[in-house]
Amino acid sequence: MEKLRAAVVGATGVVGQQFIVALQSHPWFEIACLAASERSAGKSYGEALRDERTGAFRWFCDETPFDYVLDVPVENADKIDVGGLDVVFSAVEADVAVELEPKFAKTTPVISTASAFRYDVDVPILVPGVNSAQAEIISVQRRKRGWKGFISPIPNCTTTGMVITLKPLYDRFGIDCVVMTSMQALSGAGRSPGVVALDILDNVIPYIPKEEEKVQMETLKILGRYAGGRITPADIRLSCTCTRVNVMDGHTEAVFVNTKKGCSVEEAEEAFKSFGSDLAGLKLPSAPERMIVVNDDPFRPQPRLDRNTCDGMATTVGRIRKDAVFEKGIKYVLVSHNTKMGAAKGAVLVAEYLNKTGYI
Amino acid sequence: MEKLRAAVVGATGVVGQQFIVALQSHPWFEIACLAASERSAGKSYGEALRDERTGAFRWFCDETPFDYVLDVPVENADKIDVGGLDVVFSAVEADVAVELEPKFAKTTPVISTASAFRYDVDVPILVPGVNSAQAEIISVQRRKRGWKGFISPIPNCTTTGMVITLKPLYDRFGIDCVVMTSMQALSGAGRSPGVVALDILDNVIPYIPKEEEKVQMETLKILGRYAGGRITPADIRLSCTCTRVNVMDGHTEAVFVNTKKGCSVEEAEEAFKSFGSDLAGLKLPSAPERMIVVNDDPFRPQPRLDRNTCDGMATTVGRIRKDAVFEKGIKYVLVSHNTKMGAAKGAVLVAEYLNKTGYI
Amino acid sequence: MEKLRAAVVGATGVVGQQFIVALQSHPWFEIACLAASERSAGKSYGEALRDERTGAFRWFCDETPFDYVLDVPVENADKIDVGGLDVVFSAVEADVAVELEPKFAKTTPVISTASAFRYDVDVPILVPGVNSAQAEIISVQRRKRGWKGFISPIPNCTTTGMVITLKPLYDRFGIDCVVMTSMQALSGAGRSPGVVALDILDNVIPYIPKEEEKVQMETLKILGRYAGGRITPADIRLSCTCTRVNVMDGHTEAVFVNTKKGCSVEEAEEAFKSFGSDLAGLKLPSAPERMIVVNDDPFRPQPRLDRNTCDGMATTVGRIRKDAVFEKGIKYVLVSHNTKMGAAKGAVLVAEYLNKTGYI
Amino acid sequence: MEKLRAAVVGATGVVGQQFIVALQSHPWFEIACLAASERSAGKSYGEALRDERTGAFRWFCDETPFDYVLDVPVENADKIDVGGLDVVFSAVEADVAVELEPKFAKTTPVISTASAFRYDVDVPILVPGVNSAQAEIISVQRRKRGWKGFISPIPNCTTTGMVITLKPLYDRFGIDCVVMTSMQALSGAGRSPGVVALDILDNVIPYIPKEEEKVQMETLKILGRYAGGRITPADIRLSCTCTRVNVMDGHTEAVFVNTKKGCSVEEAEEAFKSFGSDLAGLKLPSAPERMIVVNDDPFRPQPRLDRNTCDGMATTVGRIRKDAVFEKGIKYVLVSHNTKMGAAKGAVLVAEYLNKTGYI
Repeated sequence: MEKLRAAVVGATGVVGQQFIVALQSHPWFEIACLAASERSAGKSYGEALRDERTGAFRWFCDETPFDYVLDVPVENADKIDVGGLDVVFSAVEADVAVELEPKFAKTTPVISTASAFRYDVDVPILVPGVNSAQAEIISVQRRKRGWKGFISPIPNCTTTGMVITLKPLYDRFGIDCVVMTSMQALSGAGRSPGVVALDILDNVIPYIPKEEEKVQMETLKILGRYAGGRITPADIRLSCTCTRVNVMDGHTEAVFVNTKKGCSVEEAEEAFKSFGSDLAGLKLPSAPERMIVVNDDPFRPQPRLDRNTCDGMATTVGRIRKDAVFEKGIKYVLVSHNTKMGAAKGAVLVAEYLNKTGYI
Repeated sequence: MEKLRAAVVGATGVVGQQFIVALQSHPWFEIACLAASERSAGKSYGEALRDERTGAFRWFCDETPFDYVLDVPVENADKIDVGGLDVVFSAVEADVAVELEPKFAKTTPVISTASAFRYDVDVPILVPGVNSAQAEIISVQRRKRGWKGFISPIPNCTTTGMVITLKPLYDRFGIDCVVMTSMQALSGAGRSPGVVALDILDNVIPYIPKEEEKVQMETLKILGRYAGGRITPADIRLSCTCTRVNVMDGHTEAVFVNTKKGCSVEEAEEAFKSFGSDLAGLKLPSAPERMIVVNDDPFRPQPRLDRNTCDGMATTVGRIRKDAVFEKGIKYVLVSHNTKMGAAKGAVLVAEYLNKTGYI
Repeated sequence: MEKLRAAVVGATGVVGQQFIVALQSHPWFEIACLAASERSAGKSYGEALRDERTGAFRWFCDETPFDYVLDVPVENADKIDVGGLDVVFSAVEADVAVELEPKFAKTTPVISTASAFRYDVDVPILVPGVNSAQAEIISVQRRKRGWKGFISPIPNCTTTGMVITLKPLYDRFGIDCVVMTSMQALSGAGRSPGVVALDILDNVIPYIPKEEEKVQMETLKILGRYAGGRITPADIRLSCTCTRVNVMDGHTEAVFVNTKKGCSVEEAEEAFKSFGSDLAGLKLPSAPERMIVVNDDPFRPQPRLDRNTCDGMATTVGRIRKDAVFEKGIKYVLVSHNTKMGAAKGAVLVAEYLNKTGYI
Repeated sequence: MEKLRAAVVGATGVVGQQFIVALQSHPWFEIACLAASERSAGKSYGEALRDERTGAFRWFCDETPFDYVLDVPVENADKIDVGGLDVVFSAVEADVAVELEPKFAKTTPVISTASAFRYDVDVPILVPGVNSAQAEIISVQRRKRGWKGFISPIPNCTTTGMVITLKPLYDRFGIDCVVMTSMQALSGAGRSPGVVALDILDNVIPYIPKEEEKVQMETLKILGRYAGGRITPADIRLSCTCTRVNVMDGHTEAVFVNTKKGCSVEEAEEAFKSFGSDLAGLKLPSAPERMIVVNDDPFRPQPRLDRNTCDGMATTVGRIRKDAVFEKGIKYVLVSHNTKMGAAKGAVLVAEYLNKTGYI
């Protein structure tokens, strides 16, 4: 099988590097184009990562970039023509995405980690296995906007883990409301400059601008119903407090859910464990063996120990308990890898799903 | 005025050291007796802190112990007679407290940081300014147990900050239910061995054994009504998830409250700010200028920046917002110093209050 | 006594804030002018610290700024006239200092934390108590440059602690050579952006650009001999490796010294302990009670426990041992507070010394 | 080929678990016996790892234990008969090793991470590729002690990285003296209780009991000459300061070396890069592709980024510079994985080497 030709735009940044890792030995996609800002254009990817002033090699992933990738020439993202490519992975910030992504989408599918288009009515926020059906709105988007391609963003990394665990509860027991407090990792803030070490050592920062609003809107949209060309957000009350803690990778979330029908701890656990078999059936290369892993050690999940479960693509759940406030409630703690399932690798999973289902 | 003669039992441990700091220049109390386990007995306090094997001086507070304190001889806690003393500050673990504290209480008031007697019906869990009226149950305790002294424990350090902030809301608006997630500091776990560095670096531990149960029971008892010689716990549903984060001191708590009457953000803020004037009126030496400090920087409160507000005796509140789940709800974040107001210095404040009101 | 009128230039940055803390209740100096970049000019100091976009109050010191300081109007550093002031404290970066400081020095003494002029032959790098005699070169500087004022920079914060401990050894035993490895705190890197949290969590960064060269040149100059209007650097071989560790404040340095005459551990300890009585005799407000504090706990000095000794103005030394490589060598570990004695407060101490000795 | 039957003694501890990871899919060895203290005896390995009181599963490695290993019954280390086994991997503490290892060695080769026998004249401290020739002393040991087996300990984890980098310099240029300061990881201290989180957060601990003496003695012995049945320690002066920093895994060491013949930076780099081809030629399963990896990024090596190079079996070197103190000196920084090459996996490498060369 010939591989699909992919571009990574914003290739030198942290998320871009994660795309490189996810794609450099991918069985379906090949890296056909790397694009970044004008400053990097004209250099090889390896040269572009080298800080000219200090000599530092600015590569931030645990995995090593392959030699062939370091030789790929970096192009100017403002000037590339993606018309001949099969898919564009966009790792740029929202303010850049709002300019570039529509240009790319005229000819080519764009899978994006940026928030720029997430809240548009004809744009799905796909989490394969959770709201696959909403992919259909892509046809509406194409028609409405006259694009050959489309824009399909993934959710905010804090939304991802929660919505994956809410989905099986929602389907079986209904959900009345959700209260969530997150303890988010540093890598979610990127590194330009991201979180300054002086601010987080021996500390917690209890506010992440716009995060709570994003989580709230995205969760309801993802759990919403697609019909007649539009998504009706789920009718769930959702309240959260998002905080930053001194953890490298892996968002931890303490979730309190009131269901509609009520459910026992065992039923919830069973719902978590059995979730995701549809997705598994599709045999997508980046899909985790299990969407949700339940850990019965009372001290788990912990971000350092559980973030890499199923190569960072599973959500780990533990501490499932009856809730004392909500009559039909349960509470639990989850850990989700914010830069694997929650970012580039999750976006590649979306591309795999859309390829399997014919959108790419 | 002649000072009241105080014993510190468990004087060599972390909480004992905090008692030393709180008492060594106290205007009302003087350190008349230091007691610890048999191993330390017979040494001076300074010698007892020195690790014989390694030569390390095992003192853990920021404040320096005064020279005169280092010269005080340490006695065997199992054998001391506290009959001639005015008050005993007990910093021992619960399993030791259950043996020693009743012995001491036969003759002398015992203010304790241990949980051993917190849940007894004739024992108050005092937080001056919050449930001062419950001090009256001390008379019941004395009569019932035939003691000249009494046992008066302070709450768990995670309860303290929350109950201080709930009290003004409870009094003005009523409280239907509370959902809370804590991000607790390392010092709350002590150091024998406390939290192992390998377990918490780059990590969150989402479980602290028995903590959630303690917070739940204590909060309802403290907010309860005292009448007819007994405390009726408050009728509030309360659910929490207690986690440990890599922070030295200062518990951070994300609180979601549904009130009964409803309250605006401004009303809640006003309730927080005006709380505690009764206590302030008593002019107790360890009482904070303000019980609750509201910080309007959206990124606050942070444990490292706010734990020492009013010498660690105030609770700092920020991020006060309307809640999206509870119709009459508000949510906020608080920081409370777990080893100042939440431990020894909070216990000394209780002793001050009980002295002012004639119990000591 | 009327106070001396001082300007703080670069007042909104981290070092500038430390100057505010050092000066706001100073018995000799008063804050007569606060200057910063054009962006802050025209606002009150309190307004200038408030981040307009996020609402964060960007104040970074443990100590609180006094209300009167928050009301001081901030002026544009490029346009102020310091002619009527008694002293300028400069907290700007080297590239700005190179422009501004000579302008100020035409009329007014400038005490600077910037490196811009440290290596000029007519500029002293003063550490009061260590090389006070070198202050005389200020007269040369004034004459040569035709300035009424002068520029007097303090050393790099990593130089400070080492040179203070080398001085008594140098005076008594002579020094042949020094090998040093530093483990430096985050605050030394400032916060624009300073060290990114992702880079230092669970990590050591073994390189700080230009730091090793600075330490080497400055140490030799400070220990050098002043005669005939010039400083002859000390004839000492010095080699160091400077690293960054995940510590807030307080540089730790492992020092290996070969003396010329040889010295026992006891002699070295005695030299450390008795050092600094000249300085103490001057009764300068910011001078530590002791320049060097020797801690005989084998596990000390530690940055978190020892950085605040004598309000951060003393250097703590421990682990004094005979060396196995250098025949006449000793080795030890020191901790010095890089943002107190090593920065603004150290600069204020220089100003105090220069005032006492008539230069200001 | 039939696999060699191996015992792991001290199997439930941290080092024991690392042995499990190193052996559970090893091509040459099979886990034939797991032994621990009486408390674990009679349980399956999986049961023994479960904390009965809290329910925590006490497994500390990143790699997951295989299911078949969890089913292996744990035996009482005091009572096992290792006579039928081919090799014993001993992960017990020194005080236990001194009793158990000689008993095992009567019949069976013992590869140990304990220090108990390192300094005996007839015991080698092997680092394959560095002092392989010293393996011959095993024959002396057997003869002298009348054992069929033998005891072969690995060095202290801080010695390992340094001695690997010193060896090529020693062979080519001779070494006069070495000054070293280490910044050691938490995992080197184990977890019973190891380093307490409160002690190391925002801190450096500048002392590790006995560490400096061990590094000194072991380095000279390993670089020593074997002839006539005995090892003559190398004639090198060596001085070090060993500190603990808040890093999970990976010891960082700043090394200053005075050679005898002199060497340029390029020659040193070339010596590092070409080192270890003998070992590579043996095709041992755990041997790294390269013993030493030179990283030319000036900010490297860093423990978090470089500890896992070649699966934690390579030593990474960077910042190679001419030294300013030593006339023929160079200085550099190294990172070595203290619980991979520096512990169990390094011990398995020794066993592989001794098997290849006929001792096992």
